[in-house]
Amino acid sequence: MPFDSREIWKRIDSLTKPPRSLGKLEELAARLCEIQQTLAPRTSPRRLVLFAADHGVAAAGVTAWPSTVTGLMVQNILKGGAASAVLARQFGTQAVLVDVGTFGSDDGPPLAAAAAGVEYHNCRVRRGTRDLSREPALSSGEFEAALEVGRQQGRQAAADGIRLVAAGEMGIGNTTPSACLAMLLANVPVDHAVGRGAGADDATLNHKRHVVGEAVARARKTWEHDQNGAIAAVSGLEIAAMAGLFIAAHEARLTVVLDGYVASAAALIAEHMCPGTRNSLVASHLSAEGGHRFVLEHLGLAPLLEWNMRLGEGTGALLLMPLLDAAAAMISQMATFEDVGIAHKS
Amino acid sequence: MPFDSREIWKRIDSLTKPPRSLGKLEELAARLCEIQQTLAPRTSPRRLVLFAADHGVAAAGVTAWPSTVTGLMVQNILKGGAASAVLARQFGTQAVLVDVGTFGSDDGPPLAAAAAGVEYHNCRVRRGTRDLSREPALSSGEFEAALEVGRQQGRQAAADGIRLVAAGEMGIGNTTPSACLAMLLANVPVDHAVGRGAGADDATLNHKRHVVGEAVARARKTWEHDQNGAIAAVSGLEIAAMAGLFIAAHEARLTVVLDGYVASAAALIAEHMCPGTRNSLVASHLSAEGGHRFVLEHLGLAPLLEWNMRLGEGTGALLLMPLLDAAAAMISQMATFEDVGIAHKS
Repeated sequence: MPFDSREIWKRIDSLTKPPRSLGKLEELAARLCEIQQTLAPRTSPRRLVLFAADHGVAAAGVTAWPSTVTGLMVQNILKGGAASAVLARQFGTQAVLVDVGTFGSDDGPPLAAAAAGVEYHNCRVRRGTRDLSREPALSSGEFEAALEVGRQQGRQAAADGIRLVAAGEMGIGNTTPSACLAMLLANVPVDHAVGRGAGADDATLNHKRHVVGEAVARARKTWEHDQNGAIAAVSGLEIAAMAGLFIAAHEARLTVVLDGYVASAAALIAEHMCPGTRNSLVASHLSAEGGHRFVLEHLGLAPLLEWNMRLGEGTGALLLMPLLDAAAAMISQMATFEDVGIAHKS
Repeated sequence: MPFDSREIWKRIDSLTKPPRSLGKLEELAARLCEIQQTLAPRTSPRRLVLFAADHGVAAAGVTAWPSTVTGLMVQNILKGGAASAVLARQFGTQAVLVDVGTFGSDDGPPLAAAAAGVEYHNCRVRRGTRDLSREPALSSGEFEAALEVGRQQGRQAAADGIRLVAAGEMGIGNTTPSACLAMLLANVPVDHAVGRGAGADDATLNHKRHVVGEAVARARKTWEHDQNGAIAAVSGLEIAAMAGLFIAAHEARLTVVLDGYVASAAALIAEHMCPGTRNSLVASHLSAEGGHRFVLEHLGLAPLLEWNMRLGEGTGALLLMPLLDAAAAMISQMATFEDVGIAHKS
């Protein structure tokens, strides 16, 4: 018999503190209990799966950084020097990097990868997406293949005994498809959906809005007869893979910690393709990217941290990890009023 | 030569991420660097010092809980079942409990204290304060004695090699003196200064406002000729001790993590008595108690977490511990753009 919300809150309110005095920490504990259907939720072992891919649209002047940065940052993650690698180590989170479609060569990962503790998989579906300002970014087949890369990672996590999983991404240009998906799947207005990403200036921002608006208009025309094709046309390989991970993790009853804007765009795909996936998600933070608030509202999720972050790589999800540990410890380890002989205020 | 803000931000902006894309995590790292005057700040070893005391005013109908709860919660902390004990264990933080004036007997701590890893000290200045709704809560001498209990703890922490210290409190009724201090030392209007504490109902809240308003009016009359006496009259033993800890920690150049409303009232005392103490403080969270925002503004501090917490016991400060670790790891362990061969965007 499933635990209902009332039973969970009865337990939380029995703990030795004024009722609800731990605020969002209690809400987080309740969410974990709901997802895991237990009063003793677990937050480890846990894993961050980082999906890397490139975007043809990066050449169309929508981003402040060249696509070569994707490959350099992949190396940096594998060597342990990127923010995600540092935070994963700090918070006892396994890290896996899956190249699902960078422009990079086939030289493979640097030798340092194993030493830094980041596992590497080359699962390239193709070398970057096509330029969505001119043509569909992905065919339906490519989209499905990238989705399957993510699903495979979700199944593997479950098979490895992982309890809690997060997805991160590295892909120069990927806030552009994310903005398209926010418009297409959550009806976010273009001015909110399109932000500065990793640092676009005013001119770049205006151009990005134009590109996104046009691409979404084209995708909407094909929506009626081919929804997956319309999504694929404005998507990214790493975004599709994240969606696949979310779906498989939900199916395996894992807890999923959602990162920022790009991850949430992927969650829109996951929820569209597999309704109910959102019930396995915990929203870690509210991104500085303005469209994120609308996407989370569409998913019915409330973010825990408002730290004005916009890095990606799963960094927001990683920051929530110790707070998830705290929520689980609170409900599992605190004494009750009955234990200590205090008359329980109702 | 001291590190200035420009040098710190130059370092943070050289790390492999879009500038400022880690938002408040970067601000937290900068704050640690400023306080510790280094680009490699340390966040451990660290210690939470919990001060417990009772309040005569609790008998005057300002609180939802009887004073007996203070002693029961002290036992609960020592046995490891209280929120603070659970979170201190979770986040690798030493915990010390100092009884600076509960109503309790002299039976000493339960045998379980050592097993739960919480050190206990009986440093009672007196058994609870007097009822501040009728007379001064503490004499100047008692106030100074409680302050010295805290200073001693601060000096001990420094002697033990502690890098980062937090103060927590347990004392039924202590949001009433805290509200008085917020009014007296930060000019917070009474309707903002007085909140529901650990769960006061409407009638209790109105009465609490009346009691606080009258007590502050009396204290203000003596302010001109005896500031410490005025503060002592509306203070608490654990609040004075926390102020002493903050002053000694600041003098020893430790980093101090500030908890919620009661701790911040103590910080007002510390800053009043030893101007500049606030420069060693990191504000962990914004309490659900409405006066806290005003007190933090008066201290020039910005809270990191807005989690609607109002438990006390140092729980807000404890929740920030892993995020402080993350900030320190970020600045110490991340690769720079130069390291990985990416042209640095300015």
